[in-house]
Amino acid sequence: MGQTISEKIISNHVGNKVYAGELVISDVDGCMASDTTGPLTIKAFKAMGGKKVFNPEKCALIIDHAAPSPNERIANLHKMMRDFAKEQGMRLFEIGEGICHQVMVENQYVKPGDIFVGADSHTPTYGALNAFACGVGSTDLAAVMMTGKIWLKVPQTIKVHCSGKLQDGVTAKDLILFLVGKITVSGATYQAIEFCGEAFEGLSLASRMTIANMSSEMGAKTGIVHPKGLELDYDFSGITPDDDAEYIKTFDFDVSDLEPQVSAPESPDNVHNISNYEGTKINYAFIGTCCNGRLEDFNIAAKILKGKKIHPDVRMVIAPASQSVLLDAISNGSMTTLIEAGASLITSGCGPCVGTHQGVPADGEVVISAANRNFRGRMGNPKSNIFLGAPSTVAASAIEGKIVNPKKYLI
Amino acid sequence: MGQTISEKIISNHVGNKVYAGELVISDVDGCMASDTTGPLTIKAFKAMGGKKVFNPEKCALIIDHAAPSPNERIANLHKMMRDFAKEQGMRLFEIGEGICHQVMVENQYVKPGDIFVGADSHTPTYGALNAFACGVGSTDLAAVMMTGKIWLKVPQTIKVHCSGKLQDGVTAKDLILFLVGKITVSGATYQAIEFCGEAFEGLSLASRMTIANMSSEMGAKTGIVHPKGLELDYDFSGITPDDDAEYIKTFDFDVSDLEPQVSAPESPDNVHNISNYEGTKINYAFIGTCCNGRLEDFNIAAKILKGKKIHPDVRMVIAPASQSVLLDAISNGSMTTLIEAGASLITSGCGPCVGTHQGVPADGEVVISAANRNFRGRMGNPKSNIFLGAPSTVAASAIEGKIVNPKKYLI
Repeated sequence: MGQTISEKIISNHVGNKVYAGELVISDVDGCMASDTTGPLTIKAFKAMGGKKVFNPEKCALIIDHAAPSPNERIANLHKMMRDFAKEQGMRLFEIGEGICHQVMVENQYVKPGDIFVGADSHTPTYGALNAFACGVGSTDLAAVMMTGKIWLKVPQTIKVHCSGKLQDGVTAKDLILFLVGKITVSGATYQAIEFCGEAFEGLSLASRMTIANMSSEMGAKTGIVHPKGLELDYDFSGITPDDDAEYIKTFDFDVSDLEPQVSAPESPDNVHNISNYEGTKINYAFIGTCCNGRLEDFNIAAKILKGKKIHPDVRMVIAPASQSVLLDAISNGSMTTLIEAGASLITSGCGPCVGTHQGVPADGEVVISAANRNFRGRMGNPKSNIFLGAPSTVAASAIEGKIVNPKKYLI
Repeated sequence: MGQTISEKIISNHVGNKVYAGELVISDVDGCMASDTTGPLTIKAFKAMGGKKVFNPEKCALIIDHAAPSPNERIANLHKMMRDFAKEQGMRLFEIGEGICHQVMVENQYVKPGDIFVGADSHTPTYGALNAFACGVGSTDLAAVMMTGKIWLKVPQTIKVHCSGKLQDGVTAKDLILFLVGKITVSGATYQAIEFCGEAFEGLSLASRMTIANMSSEMGAKTGIVHPKGLELDYDFSGITPDDDAEYIKTFDFDVSDLEPQVSAPESPDNVHNISNYEGTKINYAFIGTCCNGRLEDFNIAAKILKGKKIHPDVRMVIAPASQSVLLDAISNGSMTTLIEAGASLITSGCGPCVGTHQGVPADGEVVISAANRNFRGRMGNPKSNIFLGAPSTVAASAIEGKIVNPKKYLI
C-alpha cells in the first residue's frame, strides 16, 4: 500500500512500514526548546530524574523569544538555560543568534527525511526541508531529551496541490495566507499537510519555510513541502509520496491569478484579497519572525523602500531571523536601505511577535505584520489590531501609511 | 570682573553681565524630553493650561529609553508623545532614531554658546559643544516649553585642568572616570565644571560628549569643555573663560601616565586603576548609551574584536547611540566585525542602560558596561553587579571573559 511523505519518514525511523492511525515510538534526529519552553523543559527533565540528555549534539536551546532579556525574571530563566546547556555539553544559541527555527536549519540540526521535535508551535517550519517536524509541549520535550524517542500517532495527510506560477509581486506568504484562508485554523488538526505542485517547485528554501511555517496556523501536526525543486548547500535525497498514497483530503488550486493576500483581525484564517482592505490606515509595520524574517524578505522590502521614506505616521520594526541573515542583509546593502528609509532594526530573534517586548502596539493602533499570527492580543495589546501580509505588502504599506498592493512598487 | 564660560553664556542670553549666585530668567535655545519624562511633561503642560509650545522648531520629543515599547503601558505613553508632537507641529524622534542627547547634537538643536534644557539627567552632554546645558524635571520642562524661558541660579564653576596627553589605548572614558573618582558623585553639586587643558584639546566631539556626559555623575548642573580644538561641521565661535574668572575650586591633574580606569560596583565614583580588578570574571558586556555609543566607540571595539570571538561565557550587547551612528558603523565595517565576533546588536537608543528592557542581567551576574552609571539595580536587577569602563575595556574583557587592560589589543 502506498505511503505519504510522513508515513515514509516515520517508517524509515521505526524500521517497518507504518500508516496513518498507527501508534509508534520513533527515534528523533534532533530536538530543541526556546526560552519560552526551555526553562519548563529543564524543570521537567530534572523532576523526571534526568541526568544526561540522550545526545548533546542533537539537542539545542535557543534564547530568542525574549532576547535580550526584558526583565529580571526572564534574565534568570535565561541563566537557567545557560547553566543547563553548559552542564550537558549541548549548544545554547545566545541572544541575537536568531530564531530557533532559523538557526536549527542554518546549523543543520535538521535535514531532509529527519524527524525533529521542538517545544514550539512553529516547529513544522522544517517541513520546508522535506523533514517531519512537529511541536510538542515542554514536558514531552523533556522526555525526548532524556530518551531520544517520541511517541507518535502517524497522522493522516491532507494533500494540497497548487498549479500555476505565482505572478510577479505575489509571494509564498500570499500563497500560504490564501491556503490558510481556505483550509481554516482548525482544518488540518493533527494531520500532516503535503504541499505539492508547480507553485511550490520554484520556491527557495526560505519561501518553503514560510509555507511550512504556517501549517501550524491550520492546526497541522506537520506540513511538508514536496522536495521537487528544493536546493540545499549539501547533497540529499528527497522523500516523495507514492502514487497510490492515501490522503484524507485533497485540495487543488490554480494560483496563477492569485493577488496579494491579507489576513484581517483577528484570526490568521480571516484571509482576503488585498483589494478588500486597500486604504486601511496603519500605524506600525513589522517584518521579521520565523515566518518572514529571512534575507529574501528584507531584499524585497529594500527593493520597495529604496530611496523612499516610511510614512510619518508609521513606525517600522525589522527583526532578522538570525545573525547570519543580518550579516547577509548588511553585506548586500538591504539593511542600509531599510534603515535609511526609517526602519528600526532590532535584535535578531522573535522581536515583538509574541508581545513580550520590542514593539508592543498602543491602544487602537493598526499593525501590518509579516508574522504568522494575529489573534487578539498576540503582540501584547488586546486593544490593537493586526493584519498579516507578505513583507512586500508590509513595506509598501509602510510608505503609504495604509494597506496597499505592493505590485506597483515591484513591476 | 572676569567670567567663567557659564557666566558668559548666561550673560549673553539675559543681556547683562551676571555672576555666580545671581538668579536670572533666561531665554533657552532649545529643549527636549524623552519617553521617560515626555509624558509627564505633556501632562504638566496641559495642566498648566498650555496651548502652544513657545517655538515648535526649538522643542523636541525623543522615544529612546524604552524603544521599541516593551509593554502596553509604555506603548500608550509613546502614543501620547506622538499625538502631542503632531498637534504642536514639533519633531518627534521615533524608535530607533537614537538617544535624545545624540540626536539633539546631530540635528543641531543645540550649538556652541547655547542654553539648552532637557528633561534628562545627562543633558550636560551638550557641554561638549561648549554650550550651557542642564537637566530639569518634567514639570520645569513643561514651563520651559510654554515660555521658552528658564529660571536659573548662575552656578559657581569648578575648573578641571588636565595636562599631558593620554597614552595610546587610554580614552576619554578613562579620563572622565578618573575625574569622577577624584571629584566624587556629590563633589560638584549644582556647580558648573569647566574642562580645560591639553588632555581635552585633542579630543573629538564624540569624546568630548563622553566627558561632558559624566559631569552628571559629579552632581554638576552643567559641564562645559573648553572649545580649544573643537571641530564641527559648521562655523562657530567658542566661548572661553576670562583669565581672571573666579572659580570655586580648581583641580589640576597630569594625566599622561593614566592607565585604563574602571568604576567598581556600586557607584560611578568607586573608580580604580584597571589593574586592581584585572581577572574579575564577567558574564555580560555592553557598549552603548549617551556616554559611549558613538562611532569611535564601535570602531575601537571592532579594532579589538576583529577576527576574534567573544568568550563563550559572555554575551555582548551593542546599542548605537543613533541611526546615523548605526549607518556609519555598517558602512565602515565595524558593525559586521562586532556581529561576527558574536555581539548582539539592539535598536539604536538607550538599550539596557536604565533597566527597562533589552538586556536585564540575571541574579549574581557581573556586567562590564560602557555606560555612565552602576548604582545597585541600575540595569534592572539589584542582584547583579556593574563595572563601568571604556568601550576598549569592555571589548577586550568580552574576549577574555574577565576584566582586562585593553592595551595589548591596541598597541
